[in-house]
Amino acid sequence: MTFYIGVDIGGTNIKVGVVDEAGRIVGESSCPTGADRPQEVVLKDILRTAEDAVAASGVPRRDIHAAGVGSPGAVDSETGTVLYNYNLGWRDFAIAPMMSEALDLPVRLENDANAAALGEVVAGSAKGASSAMVITLGTGVGSGFVIDGNIWTGYNSAACEFGHMVIAYGGRPCTCGRRGCFEAYASATGLIAMTKEAIAAHPNSALGELAHREGCVSGHTPFDAAEAGDPVAQRVVDEYIGYLACGLVNLINGLQPEVISIGGGIGKQGERLLAPLRLKVAEETFGERTEGEKMTRLVSCTLGYKAGLIGAAMAARR
Amino acid sequence: MTFYIGVDIGGTNIKVGVVDEAGRIVGESSCPTGADRPQEVVLKDILRTAEDAVAASGVPRRDIHAAGVGSPGAVDSETGTVLYNYNLGWRDFAIAPMMSEALDLPVRLENDANAAALGEVVAGSAKGASSAMVITLGTGVGSGFVIDGNIWTGYNSAACEFGHMVIAYGGRPCTCGRRGCFEAYASATGLIAMTKEAIAAHPNSALGELAHREGCVSGHTPFDAAEAGDPVAQRVVDEYIGYLACGLVNLINGLQPEVISIGGGIGKQGERLLAPLRLKVAEETFGERTEGEKMTRLVSCTLGYKAGLIGAAMAARR
Repeated sequence: MTFYIGVDIGGTNIKVGVVDEAGRIVGESSCPTGADRPQEVVLKDILRTAEDAVAASGVPRRDIHAAGVGSPGAVDSETGTVLYNYNLGWRDFAIAPMMSEALDLPVRLENDANAAALGEVVAGSAKGASSAMVITLGTGVGSGFVIDGNIWTGYNSAACEFGHMVIAYGGRPCTCGRRGCFEAYASATGLIAMTKEAIAAHPNSALGELAHREGCVSGHTPFDAAEAGDPVAQRVVDEYIGYLACGLVNLINGLQPEVISIGGGIGKQGERLLAPLRLKVAEETFGERTEGEKMTRLVSCTLGYKAGLIGAAMAARR
Repeated sequence: MTFYIGVDIGGTNIKVGVVDEAGRIVGESSCPTGADRPQEVVLKDILRTAEDAVAASGVPRRDIHAAGVGSPGAVDSETGTVLYNYNLGWRDFAIAPMMSEALDLPVRLENDANAAALGEVVAGSAKGASSAMVITLGTGVGSGFVIDGNIWTGYNSAACEFGHMVIAYGGRPCTCGRRGCFEAYASATGLIAMTKEAIAAHPNSALGELAHREGCVSGHTPFDAAEAGDPVAQRVVDEYIGYLACGLVNLINGLQPEVISIGGGIGKQGERLLAPLRLKVAEETFGERTEGEKMTRLVSCTLGYKAGLIGAAMAARR
């Protein structure tokens, strides 16, 4: 049997798994990331956690053929170097060669969102798709594009920042410096901002009362209030879905992937989000809607946090 | 020697060429498209023109191994069928199998913009690029994406309608039914509309006088007046470049192709367009601009009308 180590580096925790050829986790372990510590100290924790995961899996060391690492930030997969990463404070961190030496295995580095996309294609919501785009709706909007089982990284390893695709010229400011990015509208952060604006304008709405009762506004709040029949919340949800559909239709018109999988915090709304989203997307997509015409399938991600480490392990297969 | 027939179906003319392995045309011919005639009648003209091109090339019939056709509209490359095409009035036209039978050759059908993109990659501005996007700025905005010498058609042959990527949510109406599409701003049509609006607001500007003298507004008009120092025209050019850069940066952030080639009527402005465009694109692209960082190259298309037929021929190689 052949197994791979997958490492998913998050802002809070580092998760490591031993994964089989089919993308099943057979042993795992984790440790706190401890961002802002020297890179080399974090590396030691990763290596120790990898050994823990191998021990937990019971897989003989000789059956492990390679390791993959998913890291946030800008990465160069050819040299295995994290170029820079604002959240963790990393810069020019040659993590793959260093891990490779310590583990005596080939090590492949990928961007974390891209790795998660590959995980969903190999073992999750887009299993078997010839091409798939995974969009994660969280603090930001992440995206990964997988063609024939390979992550599309562009010619410089920096591709798939579709969160920073402008959909509203001159619109909401984005963390990247542009205005009107998809991320500024379709992220959980964007939805929460829209919800707070609606509450400020309609403090006595059921939406406002729900937020007051819960003491905060989350990505759930407008969906819950809309489901309970509040028109103010419904308008927020409709507006949000309008922006989200806009970005997705851009991707469909341009790339026509077989599947788009929606993940991240807002993705957990499941059909409450996807059912109206599919209608809006079908309405706006370029071309005629003839019977039997092949349309991109819109589904929810199914692997959750495991997508990243499964995908990192699967990236190591190449 | 191995040769291929390439057919480029345009709204006005059909061009046919015999092309060698390296993408060089060794013989060509053309005929009027005569749109709105029955599909079968047009097919007869294509076949006759192909024989003319073969005769002009002097290539022995047995050295021609396949033919490729670039057609506007929605095509299904798997079945070789033009699904629909509003300009020519075609619908469910199984052109590739019909040509294949008549010519006794394998025939490959591609969308015309995709074929032109492949032509630029094999023999033109993006020669040798591992990945390239070709954007044509004409009546509409066409796009083609080529990865490792293959046209990216998506899983349903309908990909690469990046002209119908919304960049200005709720903005200018587009022919596709959406609002704010890249095409509505970055096409020659979009530039001419912006120019006319500026002239209406400033009829006595040098721009207005130039348009009056020439009796019309074309894609050249604002560039000519701006070069002569007119601030009204300069604002139009700056606004246009802002929208064009916006769409290109979306594509770069998402796909990071090695090269983007700009063609079509507006592409003929060459460095007058590209020099300021490169500055704007560099300013907006996601990530740090570190020294030596790989950046997508922005260049002008070099094959002109020949790109379509060369690319159609090259698509037939697969």
